[in-house]
Amino acid sequence: MSIDTSLPADSVGVVAARSAHFAAPLTLKSGAVLPGFDLMYETYGELNAARSNAVLVCPALSGHHHAAGVRADDPSNVGWWDNLIGPGKPLDTRKFFVVGVNNLGGCHGSSGPISANPETGRPWGADFPLVTVEDWVAAQSRLADLLGIDAWAAIIGGSLGGMQAMAWAIECPTRVRHAVVIASAPKLTAQNIAFNDVARQAIITDPDFHGGHYYEHGTLPRRGLRLARMLGHITYQSDDLMAEKFGRRLRAGGRKFSYEVEFEVESYLRYQGDKFAASFDANTYLLATRALDYFDPAGNAGGDLTAAFAPVRADFLVVSFSTDWRFAPSRSREIVDALMRNRRNVSYAEVESSAGHDSFLLDDPHYHALLRAYFDNITV
Amino acid sequence: MSIDTSLPADSVGVVAARSAHFAAPLTLKSGAVLPGFDLMYETYGELNAARSNAVLVCPALSGHHHAAGVRADDPSNVGWWDNLIGPGKPLDTRKFFVVGVNNLGGCHGSSGPISANPETGRPWGADFPLVTVEDWVAAQSRLADLLGIDAWAAIIGGSLGGMQAMAWAIECPTRVRHAVVIASAPKLTAQNIAFNDVARQAIITDPDFHGGHYYEHGTLPRRGLRLARMLGHITYQSDDLMAEKFGRRLRAGGRKFSYEVEFEVESYLRYQGDKFAASFDANTYLLATRALDYFDPAGNAGGDLTAAFAPVRADFLVVSFSTDWRFAPSRSREIVDALMRNRRNVSYAEVESSAGHDSFLLDDPHYHALLRAYFDNITV
Repeated sequence: MSIDTSLPADSVGVVAARSAHFAAPLTLKSGAVLPGFDLMYETYGELNAARSNAVLVCPALSGHHHAAGVRADDPSNVGWWDNLIGPGKPLDTRKFFVVGVNNLGGCHGSSGPISANPETGRPWGADFPLVTVEDWVAAQSRLADLLGIDAWAAIIGGSLGGMQAMAWAIECPTRVRHAVVIASAPKLTAQNIAFNDVARQAIITDPDFHGGHYYEHGTLPRRGLRLARMLGHITYQSDDLMAEKFGRRLRAGGRKFSYEVEFEVESYLRYQGDKFAASFDANTYLLATRALDYFDPAGNAGGDLTAAFAPVRADFLVVSFSTDWRFAPSRSREIVDALMRNRRNVSYAEVESSAGHDSFLLDDPHYHALLRAYFDNITV
Repeated sequence: MSIDTSLPADSVGVVAARSAHFAAPLTLKSGAVLPGFDLMYETYGELNAARSNAVLVCPALSGHHHAAGVRADDPSNVGWWDNLIGPGKPLDTRKFFVVGVNNLGGCHGSSGPISANPETGRPWGADFPLVTVEDWVAAQSRLADLLGIDAWAAIIGGSLGGMQAMAWAIECPTRVRHAVVIASAPKLTAQNIAFNDVARQAIITDPDFHGGHYYEHGTLPRRGLRLARMLGHITYQSDDLMAEKFGRRLRAGGRKFSYEVEFEVESYLRYQGDKFAASFDANTYLLATRALDYFDPAGNAGGDLTAAFAPVRADFLVVSFSTDWRFAPSRSREIVDALMRNRRNVSYAEVESSAGHDSFLLDDPHYHALLRAYFDNITV
């Protein structure tokens, strides 16, 4: 019996991650220089002869290169955007060559705080330099070079992934034909930054954090990372969805007059927090939330998003979700308006969904039909 | 020079807190029995001969008995609702006898986790029993007895304070003539409970918490309480107000590529967190947020708020604020609708304000004019 036979026909099947090493130093936006780096990636489908059918999938805050299919060593480990990517799925791997990537600073095999600093041989820890969305694009563009992809047919991402798609279209206008920006924003609001700061302070003030050098101390700031994720989950979901899923339901036994788990929503949040804290790296979480804070292409253009988008040549699909209060539809419309003022081709859809920000990861039929139609129309 | 001469004419002036001891045991909703207790309170104005002009001010999460005027020992310590209470102010102390109270379980002198457990002589700590909004009403009603107040002309509160006003109207219908419920809700949503749970987990998982017995360990769970307050502050303000007050402004020097304070909103939040953590008790915070979670008068009436309000005899003024997403206007309308179905006299106003939940503490002219008119019409 092979694992493959149990997989649905529209799965990309068993996938193997690859690692690419880039020896040339990379100068980051901060001025720091990274002495070469590794990126983990996965690919699904085949690059065509014209090399015109490649699609880059940019990860969100906790995303990585394993976007579709299953791991050979763990058939239960399904890619985070598997409902979107596969033969016959909206992002159809019979047509497209799809690339998933773990970003610089990540904790899934790419160079980052848990990987070895070549100068010391020990984990970088807090010494890994802070990176920006534009730095991620620069690193990803080296991966494109390696794969022989001059221009992406499309770059797609949700949330922080959408920011990478925007940054690609600005920084490398001739290398992106279509940008698909989902549940994203042209920059964070003060409220977004505030939530990120609480999450970071939870990690940094955890006594097990040791200034980010917890690997050397044999500790992990699990409490802080757990709190950060619990808080994140509240903002990823809509008030309505939480009401629908959990309401004020008490677990068996009613009020216990304690601080133990009593309401079902507490059980859900703590479970999500524990799971994440056991599998994600706190330094990566810090670094990725700071990249979110800093992203502000208009800031580099005197506050004018239209001016920031002036170099863009790509066509855009922008999608938002009605109950997403973290990156509200109004934020997507800012992107659309600035692109329209640059006379770019932009399609925009505000999808009715009760699931809040997390909607971008779900297979809502309306949403997926929209993506399918858009990808179907891309010539390769 | 006396301190009084520097106070504005509409201040209640220098006030002294008083402590009342209640020797009879109090059976709490949890079943626990509190062997007598103390309540701290302040009064402003004079009780009239008919004892018909008393107004109870119920505190919100971090509120206490010092609602108006200044402390003799610290003229800068102005009461938390001083803009509302005083001679000539909307809640006019020339007409009304106003009572501020620190609730059971509080940390400002009333019996609570930091006060001595009479059985051991040591602070109660985590052994102080959890209390509900209804328990607070029961304790406050003993204070009313002591002060010779058979019926309050009005009971007013914002947020958690509004819940106490509702509970009074339900539990002691003949003792409340008017209930003024501001920026409140008939029960928390799953999202509200989720935010509370993150705040509590921040405190409980702080290594200095020691299961709530930190006094004995000579520690304080400051990190956790600071995080709880930072998170609270985000939910007390509107997205718009944060954008207006802080936007994405960076402090001097621009991006530092660090996790230090860079954005002004971070500076504000951390300051608020530090200040609160230095002055408030973590066990009280836990207890008060659990009282918030548990409040659900409809839950005691088969989920039917109209049935829960059936005993009510008081007239109501219900006020909400347009940008309050913690206790949104729709939640106030639930209260109004249920009271209307009971044919109660209810006035309702949704005040336009950019300040979110915190609006109830501010002196918005429209809001204060409304309260003034309502109190002016109360006969004493």
